[in-house]
This record gives sequence, C-alpha cells and structure tokens, in this order.
Amino acid sequence: MVSTYAPIDGAKLSSILAGLPEVSVKLGGAPAEWRVREVGDGNLNLVFIVEGPAGGLVVKQALPYVRLVGESWPLPLERSWFEYNALVEQARYAPRLVPKVFHFDRAQAMIVMEYLSPHIIMRKGLIRGIEYPHFAADIAEFLAATLFNTSVLAGAASAHKRRLELFARNIELCRITEDLIFTDPYREAPLNRWNSPPLDADKRAFEADSALKVAAQARKYQFLTAAQALIHGDLHTGSIMLTAHETRVIDAEFAFMGPIGFDVGAVIGNLLLAYCAQEGHEAAPHARDAYRAWILDQVVAVWAGFHDRFLALWRQAREGEAYVKSLFTSPQDEAALEAERRRFLRSLFEDMLGFGGLKMIRRILGLAHVEDLESIADPARRATCERKALRLAHTLVVEGVKFSGIVEVVEAAKRHALPLG
Amino acid sequence: MVSTYAPIDGAKLSSILAGLPEVSVKLGGAPAEWRVREVGDGNLNLVFIVEGPAGGLVVKQALPYVRLVGESWPLPLERSWFEYNALVEQARYAPRLVPKVFHFDRAQAMIVMEYLSPHIIMRKGLIRGIEYPHFAADIAEFLAATLFNTSVLAGAASAHKRRLELFARNIELCRITEDLIFTDPYREAPLNRWNSPPLDADKRAFEADSALKVAAQARKYQFLTAAQALIHGDLHTGSIMLTAHETRVIDAEFAFMGPIGFDVGAVIGNLLLAYCAQEGHEAAPHARDAYRAWILDQVVAVWAGFHDRFLALWRQAREGEAYVKSLFTSPQDEAALEAERRRFLRSLFEDMLGFGGLKMIRRILGLAHVEDLESIADPARRATCERKALRLAHTLVVEGVKFSGIVEVVEAAKRHALPLG
Repeated sequence: MVSTYAPIDGAKLSSILAGLPEVSVKLGGAPAEWRVREVGDGNLNLVFIVEGPAGGLVVKQALPYVRLVGESWPLPLERSWFEYNALVEQARYAPRLVPKVFHFDRAQAMIVMEYLSPHIIMRKGLIRGIEYPHFAADIAEFLAATLFNTSVLAGAASAHKRRLELFARNIELCRITEDLIFTDPYREAPLNRWNSPPLDADKRAFEADSALKVAAQARKYQFLTAAQALIHGDLHTGSIMLTAHETRVIDAEFAFMGPIGFDVGAVIGNLLLAYCAQEGHEAAPHARDAYRAWILDQVVAVWAGFHDRFLALWRQAREGEAYVKSLFTSPQDEAALEAERRRFLRSLFEDMLGFGGLKMIRRILGLAHVEDLESIADPARRATCERKALRLAHTLVVEGVKFSGIVEVVEAAKRHALPLG
Repeated sequence: MVSTYAPIDGAKLSSILAGLPEVSVKLGGAPAEWRVREVGDGNLNLVFIVEGPAGGLVVKQALPYVRLVGESWPLPLERSWFEYNALVEQARYAPRLVPKVFHFDRAQAMIVMEYLSPHIIMRKGLIRGIEYPHFAADIAEFLAATLFNTSVLAGAASAHKRRLELFARNIELCRITEDLIFTDPYREAPLNRWNSPPLDADKRAFEADSALKVAAQARKYQFLTAAQALIHGDLHTGSIMLTAHETRVIDAEFAFMGPIGFDVGAVIGNLLLAYCAQEGHEAAPHARDAYRAWILDQVVAVWAGFHDRFLALWRQAREGEAYVKSLFTSPQDEAALEAERRRFLRSLFEDMLGFGGLKMIRRILGLAHVEDLESIADPARRATCERKALRLAHTLVVEGVKFSGIVEVVEAAKRHALPLG
C-alpha cells in the first residue's frame, strides 16, 4: 500500500486509528467515543493525545518544516524513521525508560505510542520546584544502558557499522545541532535571540572570545566525527517526562552515531540551567535554597550513576569488539584494562562538560531558548540568571580539563550562581 | 543488463573488453592481437595485464574469497565497489597519484584501469635498494590531499555523512584489519605466523604485555569509531607503484571513513620495516648504510610533507563545516585557531606512531608478512631484523606520546635497528 503523506487533523486521525486493530483495542469503544487533542508544544512536530474508554495513546507526526520557524525552514519527514529506529534500540536496552511504540507508519511519518500520564515534562517540574526521587538513577541507567550497549565496547563492529549506515542519513536534524549549538551563538546570525539589551555586551564578548570559539568548534568536529554510540541527540529536560515514580525519555528524532558525552552533557547542562534559573522563580531570596541543593545533588547523582553503571557494564561485557575480553587474562592485564577504562571515563567526563556548557550557552544566545529562563518575566532578573549560567558554561567549555570531578563542577556552579547576600 | 558474476579467464577477458568500445580503442588492433597475463601477487584478487598494439591496461577482479587463504575464507565481491568509489574520490583530490579508471562493472566486481609501466611495487624497490627522488613529496601530497579533502575540515557535513553511509557497508574488509592488526598478533590465533623458533619468546612476551595490548585495543577502538576522513585503509609500500619520476597509489578496497593517522602510519611503519630489513639484504655489514639513511630521510620527508601540506590546505579552506572560517576574524582568533591546528596535527602525529607501530608488529607476528623480511633466507639473520623492528614498533605504540617530533622517531629507529659493530 502506498500512502501519500498529509498532515493529520483530529477527525482524520480517529479513522486512521480505527483501521489499526491493535491500536483500536487499546482505546476501546467506538471511534466516535475517542477524544483527540493536539498538544504539541515542541519545535518540530504535531502531537495528539487520543483517549478512549479503555485508555489513551499518543500520535506523533513529523511536519515537513520546523514548527518553531515555519514553512520557510523545511525539514525531512524521514526524521520520524530515525526516531522510530532509535526508540526500538533504546527499548532493547532500557525498556522501562522509553514510551512503548504501538505502530509506525513511515509514509505518514507517524508514530503511535504509549500515552504517558500523569507524567509531566521535567523542565516544567524544575520550574515549579518539584523533586523527583527516581530521576537521577533512571536517567543514569538510560544513559549508561543505551550508550554502552550501542557501542563497540558492548557489541560487534558489523552491528555498529549497520547503525552508522542507517543513521548517517539523519543529516538535516544533525545540521540543526551543528549550526544552532556549535556555530551560530558565536557569531552574528539572523536566528539568534537573546535578552536584549541586558545581555548585548555578553553576546558581543562571546563573539570575540577566541578560546571559546575554538573550543566550541573542536566540539563540533567531535560531534561530526566521533561515532561512539547511538546517541539520543537532544536529551534536555524537555525530552524527559516523569512522575515521582517513573521516568521516560522521549523525542529521539535527533538520534545518530555520535559522541557519548553529548547526551550526558545535555542532561547535566540542562540541570545547571535549571539551577541558575531558580533565582528567577523563588518567592523571596533563598526561598529555594533547598531545591537548589536538590538540583546539584542530581548533577552529582546523574554523573556518578552513569559512570558507575557504564563501568559495571563494561566489566561484565563479553562480546565487545573493542578491548577484546579474551586478550586480558592475567592480573596485570586486568589492572591495565581497568586503568584504561578509568581513562576512557575521564575523557567522557571532559566531553560531558564541554558539550553540556555549549548546550547551556545556545539556550541563552541562540535560537531555541528554555522555559526555565524565558518564564522569568522581569528582564533584569532574568539577565542575572542568564549571566550566571553563561559564566558557568564558559568555565565548563574552556576549562573542563581542570575539573578533578563532578563535585568540583557543583562547587563551580555554587561559586558562579548562588544569589548574592 | 543483468550479468552474473564469474571469475575471469584470459580468453573470456578479451571478449569482454572487445564489447567496451572506449576500452578497446586503448588496446588497438583486433582482440586476437591482445596479450593477456594474470599477474596478481596480492592476497585478494585476480589481476590481468592486457596489452594490444596501441597500449595496455589492467583488469582487477575481486574473488569471492581471500586468495592468500583459500575458499574457506569468503570475502564479499562488493569490495570492488568500495575500491571504485575510493578511486573516484582520490582522483578528485590527487589525480596525478592514482591509476585512471576506464571502466567499472559492479556485477563482475571488475575495474578496468590504467596499466602502470614501468612502475614497480615500491616494496620491491626498497628490497633492491632503489632510491625514488619523488616518492616522499608525492605520498605526502596524496595523504594530505585525500585525507584533508574528505574531512569536515574541508567540506560539508552532508557530504561527510553520505561517505559514511556508503563506506559503512565495507564491513568485511574492515574486519580483516580489526582482527589481523589489532587483535590476533597479541593472542594465540590459528592464523598467526612468525619466524619460529627464533621469535617464539618474543611472540610470548607480546602476548603477555598488558600495556601493549591496551594500547593496541585503544587504537582498535579509534579505528572503529573515528570517522575523520575517507582513508585508503591499506597504504603499505605494496600499495604504492612508482618509477624515478612517478608515484601511484593502488588497491583501495579497504577504504572507509576512519582515522587519518592510520594511512600516514601505514606509510611510515612500512618504511621503518624496510629500514630494519636492510641488514638482511646487504652484501656486507654497512654496505647499505647510505640506503638506510635515505629511508630515514623519507620518513622525515613524508611526515613533514604531509604535516605542512595538510596545514596549508586547512589554512586555505573556506568551506569546512568544522572550525567554520567566518568565526575567526581577529588576529587573536587566527592565533587561537592556528594553535588548535597545531594541536590537531600533534594528535595526528601520535596516531600515526601508534598505528604505524601496530602495522609493523602484525607483519612479523600476524598472518600477512612482508617480502622485506620474508626474503631474508637465513632465519637467524631474519630474526635479528625482525626483533629490532618489534622493539622499535613497541616503543612507537606504547610511548608515542613521548616523541617530540619525527626526528626523534628517526633517532629511535637508529638506536633500535642499526647493525652492531
């Protein structure tokens, strides 16, 4: 059956779903009883929630342009194919932590998946000051499980190269990252936005900062060439939905074979942005000090959890074609290999800081901003938060090599971003 | 037209070529006048030289197995498709330095190309003690031009990803490198061969050397994940044909998107092997001292030539999507970017030493050996050369970071490999 792509409207959606027996049964009742709502608040897609007597589900459909910008910026529908493939891989290694996929229609660029309720987008929870007791352990597990298991530390070179072949075609989504994260914030570019005039001087200073620009472009080179694992590619706190008990990672359409530190840095960078934004959300100075401390605890717990789990998976692995297990048999061998694992994770730590810092900067000086900061109504107050975040991010990007570990990162965050007085 | 693959025999070849007008005209005369010789002396393919009244050409056809081992080791015919695509790319950037392609038949896994005469395989020249005045400059140019121009330092991310997609399917040829260079020499493997018994203890010592094994496997990880450029993948001195005036690089079927240092290391490592082998070829001690010095001069000239040309291409580049030119405008920017270029090339230098050393070791302890050493009839004399090469290679692999530059590499070669007395 050849179907031609068309954007979905609500009425049509019910009839499409009625034609899918496995999907219909999840909704229950008759199509006329199904309630359809378009809820997409992201930058790229249509998202519908469909609810019937027996339950709900989500339908995500790619639009042929960037929703945030409009039809002037076309974007291939095929990103839905990459999202679907990434979800399938992630479900293999972290089944508890991604939405279930019920149906995929490549021609319609449409994924029918689990309706997450009462999960909310984590970023909104961070703005409200909500603590999530399982978040750090869950995200550490997601990062370690998906990134380790799609690497040649875990599996065969042939599987790695098949992933490379498939995801190398996700060119346009990668291009968004390449331009909007690594390049545009550091030059005059039509799409840049920032809190002007308060941050005008900061923007100009970043454009003139040679060391920062070299560091950003060195990370871009790494993003373009380091095919370490199948990365999510957009793992900010807006791609995490959770409750007090459950965590799910969504929106994998940026997935490709890239540097492991990019995903870990996305989580850490967005936590640090949330940390810097607290000053804009608290009712009185220091009212959110406890929540600030909770966020920094999550920074430590996510990194430490990722580090320990990645290391444990590596120690257990038997099939990895890099660092072939059977070569290392004596106690001296095992000690040398363990030292190499530590060196590898130290290198991921520095990558994480570099990518994380760049992801903070792009949210303040580039095209796509974050609600953590945008929702601070007073421009001066917002600028205070933004400037602290920029200063912290600058340190992470340019001086990442100097940090002995994650605790020093947290200390730097406090030093740069604690409210005065 | 669908044609079914069949290995070529000489008689059939003339009728195939007679059906290709552009090829026939290069041979001239009638097919009955064409002389066909099978000359393949490599490990993988059939190679024919066809000569007619007007000129000659070469026909290279892949066999569905490894010629060196036999039909028990199947190998995809599609490697011919990768060789063809690599030749097309190399011709774009180094047209003077690769054979011209006249015809490609994907189904027959057959490339019809320029007949190089009187060029000989460089390895044979090195054994005979022949100096090639243009070799170093030509190979430096080949390396810099092909490796720089197929990287994101020169071009678009989209072109890079299209190359990744295409060459990611060259799985089986890459697997040969992964196994035979990075893994098998460091364990008991059925295909390993070495000069036994003289090198038995050396082989055992390498199998027990934890630091060496970790270094080898770290390079394997890099080989599997560092998609820096379209590399030749097998650039030893048996893949170089030359005369006193001309140089050509052949046999690109191992090409894929890999680490730049692998190709540079292949050249340097094979020169150092030839250097260590001289003792087995000279009529009397020190008879080849001048030739030894010439080889070491080539080591310096190849690296320095590659380094300077790569740097020059980078400085001139306008379209590279990594280190975007327009970001770097002030004198401070240019100084910072230049320092970054130097750091990048230093990193390539260390990669070159690591890969080069591993390529030396595999030729002595692994499956595929080299004529430089194999042609030394006396096993004890050969072992002396081999042991010096192993010692030098070990230093390059494990202590590469300590070398300040290529001159120190040459000094280490002299220290490890000069004949005694």
